[in-house]
Amino acid sequence: MNRKKLIEQIKLKKTFLCIGLDPDVEKIPQQFLDMEDPIFEFNISIIDATADHCVAYKPNVAFYEAYGLTGIESLEKTIRYIKANYPDHFVIADAKRGDIGNTSVMYAKASFNRLNADAVTVAPYMGSDSVKPFLGFEGKWAIVLGLTSNEGSRDFQQLDVNGEPLFIKVIRQCASWGTINDMMFVVGATKAEMIDQIRKVIPDHFLLVPGVGAQGGSLEEVCKHGINKDIGLLVNVSRNIIYAGQGEDFANKAAAEAKKLSEQMKPYIK
Amino acid sequence: MNRKKLIEQIKLKKTFLCIGLDPDVEKIPQQFLDMEDPIFEFNISIIDATADHCVAYKPNVAFYEAYGLTGIESLEKTIRYIKANYPDHFVIADAKRGDIGNTSVMYAKASFNRLNADAVTVAPYMGSDSVKPFLGFEGKWAIVLGLTSNEGSRDFQQLDVNGEPLFIKVIRQCASWGTINDMMFVVGATKAEMIDQIRKVIPDHFLLVPGVGAQGGSLEEVCKHGINKDIGLLVNVSRNIIYAGQGEDFANKAAAEAKKLSEQMKPYIK
Repeated sequence: MNRKKLIEQIKLKKTFLCIGLDPDVEKIPQQFLDMEDPIFEFNISIIDATADHCVAYKPNVAFYEAYGLTGIESLEKTIRYIKANYPDHFVIADAKRGDIGNTSVMYAKASFNRLNADAVTVAPYMGSDSVKPFLGFEGKWAIVLGLTSNEGSRDFQQLDVNGEPLFIKVIRQCASWGTINDMMFVVGATKAEMIDQIRKVIPDHFLLVPGVGAQGGSLEEVCKHGINKDIGLLVNVSRNIIYAGQGEDFANKAAAEAKKLSEQMKPYIK
Repeated sequence: MNRKKLIEQIKLKKTFLCIGLDPDVEKIPQQFLDMEDPIFEFNISIIDATADHCVAYKPNVAFYEAYGLTGIESLEKTIRYIKANYPDHFVIADAKRGDIGNTSVMYAKASFNRLNADAVTVAPYMGSDSVKPFLGFEGKWAIVLGLTSNEGSRDFQQLDVNGEPLFIKVIRQCASWGTINDMMFVVGATKAEMIDQIRKVIPDHFLLVPGVGAQGGSLEEVCKHGINKDIGLLVNVSRNIIYAGQGEDFANKAAAEAKKLSEQMKPYIK
């Protein structure tokens, strides 16, 4: 999905919510456990219940890989289901990939061709030839880790490098390899004050913002600091939506939580 | 496989060669293409031909993911084959994983439990809670990216951070989270002079060294700078071995190349 369509969808649906699909068989409701593919069936229920209240889904690839082949099958089926039933929703394979050039080419193939995701998250540590192979595909995106939402982001990302934090160097350098049409950045919601710093470097890029909810980030702060003339935000919430309820009504509760977040976003969408 | 056994195997086999299994259907010999699982069959041929001349195999996960479900199946079968037939060989899932804590836990499960690899490569950019979930498993290893062998390693890894390069900061910090029994570091062979710098910080850790061969690194330089009292090296070669020949005799040529490299290593093993 290209930038123009993504912006249109955000304005049409009046939300920039992305829902993280991190299914964990230890947390999904009991009734799914006897089914042939509990993860896929759980995902379908969540997707059907929430599609009106979000513009994107972000399956977290680790949660599928942890179940081996059957997990990967659930992941492929989930993306196929979204693309078949909700073709206007943006799909992010949250995989944090990145390797030497010939290997990143393979990861790009895996994400864009095999999984048919619109975007894949990319780890920048290995530099240019690890990031560039994900760029230049029509309507496909590399979402590069800039500043993440976890505690460990302090260890390296926030190190001072000649008067500015590493994450600023990473974002500026990576932005020079792509365009606002094929690159976004992960910017954690738990560091809202740093979003100002980042917006000075990349005023026009879309930011994928995790960390609202379970990790403690504030949606209001993110909007205040991160929004740009094209909205430019995808705010991801995973656990707080998909595990909003544990009983029979889990899907309704997920929908209610997604709707609540989208209502909070509406005033920011002109 | 724990450290003691790995060192024993190196001394017994008189080699610290690791063979990278990066199968690409565009490069494997013609005769495999009509088989039901070309990648797995190719791998078997390579493994059977080379097992006497190496201590480790390193399947590069991207090359399997690029073929979707069938690729992941080939990967699982390959590791099962090694474990069943060559149980004394060390297996590294080269996956460059790393994410927030609860997600890294899932990647650790995927690598150690589902794939049954001895080790997985880990990207450090997200810091402590992204690395620590891979540690503390008996006989299992996190191999953290320190200094990689590609051109892009200059972009961030070699940035100066308060008088020393970022990769030194990363290695020192990560080493403090693990031990020499559950952590190794990726250190590219193309930067042999920097191995001295790294050995000052981590004299005892094992280093996984890619970049000899196709990427231009020198085995002699790596040995001179990297070897420690327990050897402490796994030198990986992928393309130069597995694609040493294209015809019917590809397996013999792979074996010959592996043997040649191991012969060059022998003098360094006391």
